[in-house]
Amino acid sequence: MKKTNLTVGIDVGGTNTSFGFVSDDGKIVFEKSIPTFAEQSAEQLFSRLFKEVDSSYKKLANKYNLAGIGIGAPNANYYKGTVELPPNLNWGTVNVIKLIKKYSLLPAVITNDANAAAIGEMLFGAAKEMKNFIVITLGTGLGSGIVVNGELVYGHDGFAGEIGHTIVNPNGRDCGCGRRGCLETYASATGICRTVFELICNTNLESILRKKNYQDLNARQISDAAKKGDKLALEAFDYTAKVLGLKLADSVAHLSPQAIILFGGLALAGELIIKPTKTYMENYLLNIFKGKVKILPSKLPGNYAAILGAGALIWNELKKVK
Amino acid sequence: MKKTNLTVGIDVGGTNTSFGFVSDDGKIVFEKSIPTFAEQSAEQLFSRLFKEVDSSYKKLANKYNLAGIGIGAPNANYYKGTVELPPNLNWGTVNVIKLIKKYSLLPAVITNDANAAAIGEMLFGAAKEMKNFIVITLGTGLGSGIVVNGELVYGHDGFAGEIGHTIVNPNGRDCGCGRRGCLETYASATGICRTVFELICNTNLESILRKKNYQDLNARQISDAAKKGDKLALEAFDYTAKVLGLKLADSVAHLSPQAIILFGGLALAGELIIKPTKTYMENYLLNIFKGKVKILPSKLPGNYAAILGAGALIWNELKKVK
Repeated sequence: MKKTNLTVGIDVGGTNTSFGFVSDDGKIVFEKSIPTFAEQSAEQLFSRLFKEVDSSYKKLANKYNLAGIGIGAPNANYYKGTVELPPNLNWGTVNVIKLIKKYSLLPAVITNDANAAAIGEMLFGAAKEMKNFIVITLGTGLGSGIVVNGELVYGHDGFAGEIGHTIVNPNGRDCGCGRRGCLETYASATGICRTVFELICNTNLESILRKKNYQDLNARQISDAAKKGDKLALEAFDYTAKVLGLKLADSVAHLSPQAIILFGGLALAGELIIKPTKTYMENYLLNIFKGKVKILPSKLPGNYAAILGAGALIWNELKKVK
Repeated sequence: MKKTNLTVGIDVGGTNTSFGFVSDDGKIVFEKSIPTFAEQSAEQLFSRLFKEVDSSYKKLANKYNLAGIGIGAPNANYYKGTVELPPNLNWGTVNVIKLIKKYSLLPAVITNDANAAAIGEMLFGAAKEMKNFIVITLGTGLGSGIVVNGELVYGHDGFAGEIGHTIVNPNGRDCGCGRRGCLETYASATGICRTVFELICNTNLESILRKKNYQDLNARQISDAAKKGDKLALEAFDYTAKVLGLKLADSVAHLSPQAIILFGGLALAGELIIKPTKTYMENYLLNIFKGKVKILPSKLPGNYAAILGAGALIWNELKKVK
């Protein structure tokens, strides 16, 4: 019997690291998650991880071959195979692709999670058949993956696609990157919490959110309040969409994409964020782009999107070789 | 004797239309300019133009073959071959590539002048050997051509690369596009004139430029004044560079280019504009990009840059076919 090829998709997160075996039509045959232990080295993590990968694969080896490994990780550089000073992991700078040769000689590539998500959407999700699109991940920060002519844009040094660090206002909110006013300080799960607190002090809008402290507030609570008609929560979504729409209009002016796909925690608010973002973006678009650029929700299954993206990343490379 | 191949480079301007025969190493064998007559139709222009092309080529036909035609024109769409409602020409929307089949059956492509300039820089100018760069043309407006992985970015509908219409301030200066606060209202030959008048009213800086009326003021005069130490003129360059540096940092966050090449009238001010733009851009760049992105002056000869760009455009296509 001819065996079916699968890729290994690995998603390195600050808390957990997941892996799964991904088929070329985007099905996950098996997946598992282990704790990352942020204080440990990359070597320790991948040593533990590949024990799990190996023992999981043994049970499938009669039906499947493994064809390659795709990794999504913070601050990953596709060209060099490195992860460089990830903010939430005690790794320093490490060449992950070299490191994992100890455990597997399969072809392997690495990129950041937003780039992996973009490839995932192209192969298995909302961007099937698209050649020019942008994926925006609205999580703790704002990540982005840009596809031009069917290829992910890595740029000269492998770090392209940092739309979250375009500047809304050079005198604006402090950003984790050390600068001020970056898009992700407004448009992200964290950004909308900051906006709620700005609205609490600047407006007299009544809101259930006035009872929350900043530590405990999260985007889900704002979304739930907005769905119940909470005016301040609705205003927070409107402001978030306005800032995001303004900056996405700039991205369109650069790249003229067919669609922008919203992904991640804050995107789960659905029409609450998608509809006003679309309206504001249209308003800010140059005439020649008006009515031409879709804003779509991700079509990757939320829980496994990162594994699918990482698996798609290496599927995409393997297809190039053919 | 084997004949040498040349391409025809055509640059359609609001006042004059130029053409030239361009060799594959970027030499112009012959060039000529005719008046565009903006009130005439595209058919009338190309009928006159190809008479000139034909009679010029006859004198060269014993030594040279023509291999293709490249055209740079305002509001040109590469995919469709059209020029769509050019602001300074009475053409409406016209399919130029179809139209010129009347006069020549050579392979032909069209794009806007900034995109043609980008291909020109890649083949013959400051971006030789570069695969990821941006060309910014600082003329009456601000045009841009973006190259990723060695290919010009046209985007989904052929209109990518409108960095001049990214938004600095949604409540800012009126733009010719009907919106407000576009980058080109600040960073262009026209933009710096507007800035001089803003500084005349907002500051007490002494300046020879206080004697000028707005109609007669041009970027060259501001540049000449700045070179003589005129404080207001210097301040105008500083402000222009600050706005340009801020927005170019956004472009870098999208694309991670190896270099940004400045071209056109205002770029002729040289270090007056390049040095402070570089300083401000560095200041606004995300850490991972700092110190990595060059800002360079164009290396295409000023007078013939547009013809070379148009000639390079079709050379680039012919090379793809090989």
